[in-house]
Amino acid sequence: MAHFHNVKHTTYYVELIMQQLTDTLMETNATVVRQSFSVKFAYDVYFTTHLFDGKNTLLKDFLHQHKSDTVKKIFFVVDEGVMNHHGYLDEQIRNYFSHETSIALVDEIMVVPGGEAAKNTESLLLKIVDAVDKYSIDRHSYIVAIGGGAVLDLVGYAAAISHRGIRHVRIPTTVLSQDDSAIGVKNGVNYKGKKNFLGTFAPPVAVFNDFYFLTTLTDAEWRSGISEAVKVALIKDAPFFAWLKENATVLAARNMEAMKYLVQRSAALHMEHIASGDPFEMGSSRPLDFGHWSAHKLEQLSGFTVKHGEAVALGIALDSAYSFVSGRLSEDDAKSIVDVLLDLGFSISHPLMEIKDESSPVIKGLEEFREHLGGKLTIMLLSAIGQGEEVHELDIALLQKASAWLGTI
Amino acid sequence: MAHFHNVKHTTYYVELIMQQLTDTLMETNATVVRQSFSVKFAYDVYFTTHLFDGKNTLLKDFLHQHKSDTVKKIFFVVDEGVMNHHGYLDEQIRNYFSHETSIALVDEIMVVPGGEAAKNTESLLLKIVDAVDKYSIDRHSYIVAIGGGAVLDLVGYAAAISHRGIRHVRIPTTVLSQDDSAIGVKNGVNYKGKKNFLGTFAPPVAVFNDFYFLTTLTDAEWRSGISEAVKVALIKDAPFFAWLKENATVLAARNMEAMKYLVQRSAALHMEHIASGDPFEMGSSRPLDFGHWSAHKLEQLSGFTVKHGEAVALGIALDSAYSFVSGRLSEDDAKSIVDVLLDLGFSISHPLMEIKDESSPVIKGLEEFREHLGGKLTIMLLSAIGQGEEVHELDIALLQKASAWLGTI
Ligand SMILES: NC(=O)c1ccc[n+]([C@@H]2O[C@H](COP(=O)([O-])OP(=O)(O)OC[C@H]3O[C@@H](n4cnc5c(N)ncnc54)[C@H](O)[C@@H]3O)[C@@H](O)[C@H]2O)c1
Ligand SMILES: NC(=O)c1ccc[n+]([C@@H]2O[C@H](COP(=O)([O-])OP(=O)(O)OC[C@H]3O[C@@H](n4cnc5c(N)ncnc54)[C@H](O)[C@@H]3O)[C@@H](O)[C@H]2O)c1
Ligand SMILES: [Zn+2]
Ligand SMILES: [Zn+2]
Repeated sequence: MAHFHNVKHTTYYVELIMQQLTDTLMETNATVVRQSFSVKFAYDVYFTTHLFDGKNTLLKDFLHQHKSDTVKKIFFVVDEGVMNHHGYLDEQIRNYFSHETSIALVDEIMVVPGGEAAKNTESLLLKIVDAVDKYSIDRHSYIVAIGGGAVLDLVGYAAAISHRGIRHVRIPTTVLSQDDSAIGVKNGVNYKGKKNFLGTFAPPVAVFNDFYFLTTLTDAEWRSGISEAVKVALIKDAPFFAWLKENATVLAARNMEAMKYLVQRSAALHMEHIASGDPFEMGSSRPLDFGHWSAHKLEQLSGFTVKHGEAVALGIALDSAYSFVSGRLSEDDAKSIVDVLLDLGFSISHPLMEIKDESSPVIKGLEEFREHLGGKLTIMLLSAIGQGEEVHELDIALLQKASAWLGTI
Repeated sequence: MAHFHNVKHTTYYVELIMQQLTDTLMETNATVVRQSFSVKFAYDVYFTTHLFDGKNTLLKDFLHQHKSDTVKKIFFVVDEGVMNHHGYLDEQIRNYFSHETSIALVDEIMVVPGGEAAKNTESLLLKIVDAVDKYSIDRHSYIVAIGGGAVLDLVGYAAAISHRGIRHVRIPTTVLSQDDSAIGVKNGVNYKGKKNFLGTFAPPVAVFNDFYFLTTLTDAEWRSGISEAVKVALIKDAPFFAWLKENATVLAARNMEAMKYLVQRSAALHMEHIASGDPFEMGSSRPLDFGHWSAHKLEQLSGFTVKHGEAVALGIALDSAYSFVSGRLSEDDAKSIVDVLLDLGFSISHPLMEIKDESSPVIKGLEEFREHLGGKLTIMLLSAIGQGEEVHELDIALLQKASAWLGTI
């Protein structure tokens, strides 16, 4: 609320109309109006199977919640990797909306390349922005993205900057995007090879997780997203970690019922964290980045041949080992974390992750992480399973010890 | 807050873990987690003279508020039109920061063309984004823009999308940007000739209004921004309108003390509106757009030779006349509004604004405004001076009458 007290209106003499002037302000003969307000964001995250089946009214019900006098447009952008395995989707989406009178499906269902290519190609961003223009998609229309985290990041960014933000619905199709990224508030694209250099904080209006999509992932993609669930369990939820431990083998064997539980629990924990913390990351603490300082560096060092989730598993192993060798965590607990990762099928060592001395390549990730946070270094470690603890520096000798301990397993 | 109740962790059987399931959700066998959180934004708007004078510590004091362990970078982008008249600025800014140890001025002080050209040129946007990369400007650094509304919109947008938002300080240098646009939460650039097609809602971290900049505006620029103050007075603050009426002649004669009052009062009213309303414009009501439906259309019809503020003055005249002929406002009040606009030196008629029948060109502005709002048409009229009233349609016959009445003055 802006504040000012009443002024005489009979003359153009300027009274100092603002309150809360500090002495300094007085000395500099300046005035100030302090502005502050809160913006509320709310969205629902649904979990279902066969979202576009004619009998599944979940999405329609959501769209009908926003009553209006005008017909709302809805524009779909689909990950090519998804379309290749779910070719029926195009027709299914058209059928799904064919009897709707208050919702107009935009005739073009746009297919874009999946994976990091989606975020590396400026022309794809402009293709979506141009479609917004061409089809007169306004701020009360919907742009729906169906795909992996990369396509969601691209489409979410295009939606966020077009007309200062068009309603955006996310339909994540990978484990990582369902159990972590899609329920969050970030989007972005790469610029000149720099990961997520351009982007915004812009919550979706809804997220629909359709488990059926997960059936067509490669084993590596299926596994990869599981490390984010391990991460969030380790810093927040010991019982969930116990569950992961018990179910690691069936998860690795692609048991869908186990995966459904994992996705929902991990998504809910991530959501709870976002809502209770600093959703737009205005501070410089990033608790959900447990295991990530080295993971980011490894992805880059490997030329992105190591997947994010695989790198995170390696990062979790390293930081759990560090938590042990620095006296925070028992050896048994550290061992049990490593065992779960191994049972899930992850590697816990990689030549580029080895720390022999301060010139080991992954060490540079610490400084880059500090720069990324933009303030002082803040690293999450574990003081127990289910219990994170933030520290502001890591000791290179202890990192060596942690790396060596992992080598013994 | 995400909700879920406790689950058994001894098996991978998936319980329906989410609460608040509606019947429909049950039927579709889906679960939902509802997310909601608020993000608080706060920023101070300062009014001063000679901001970069060595003795004026206002900006330094602000920068020192954010204590940190690391040296913060500060990067300046300046409107060429400002630099042409205030050539000392480059040296003054360098001197201002020369003894600072916790703030590092980026060596390049970037100068960009002013006016709409700033928003029409994609390479300018990328030039700023590239500087963010080149100088490693992070989310805890500052990007400061000095200039008119166009340069502020450009730099604000570049800051908002780089690294998902770098701290942005605005130093507006025109009447319009000081009394209206800079204190707001919007930024943007034009795309393929479409005004503000790309942009975001991203509040600045602070705004510093330096009245001295206003001394070098042309008479037309000086006057142009005044119509936004008239606008906000008419819909919100009768005493301020009375003050404007009394001071219209001295304002037109470029009295600086009167202008200081006008800027502060108008800025405070705009700020109060933003904080108490719908800052990120998620609904489809836009009360501060009084007089703007026809103004936007006129700017476009005139190929942007009519300035925004001049067009707004014409739009205010038309919608005040409409408020009178539709029986909301007395003829005396309508007349007094028109008189103030004339005393300020504005035109109240323009060939392209005349409404003779439904084919008159400005009429198309109504439909475009509805599209812009993205829902139903909502137009602000006056039920009294200082009192806005929203309506959802305008009558063409009454618009003709309003236009004709203006012709008699
Ligand atoms: N916005 C955030 O908060 C956030 C958080 C974490 C990660 N991310 C981003 O997410 C991206 C990684 O996402 P990802 O792990 O989901 O992988 P991805 O989007 O890179 O997709 C990997 C591959 O799987 C294919 N694919 C997607 N769904 C499929 C399906 N159902 N069946 C078969 N193939 C399918 C894609 O076409 C692609 O080839 C990265 O760009 C990362 O930066 C964003
Ligand atoms: N973000 C918002 O909420 C918002 C609101 C209203 C208007 N706007 C935008 O603001 C822009 C108009 O801004 P404006 O009216 O400030 O004009 P402007 O930025 O177009 O500048 C007009 C001219 O004045 C010059 N100039 C600026 N300061 C000067 C000074 N002190 N002395 C001499 N010359 C100077 C500029 O170089 C330019 O040539 C439009 O693009 C409009 O869309 C934005
Ligand atoms: Zn991650
Ligand atoms: Zn305006």
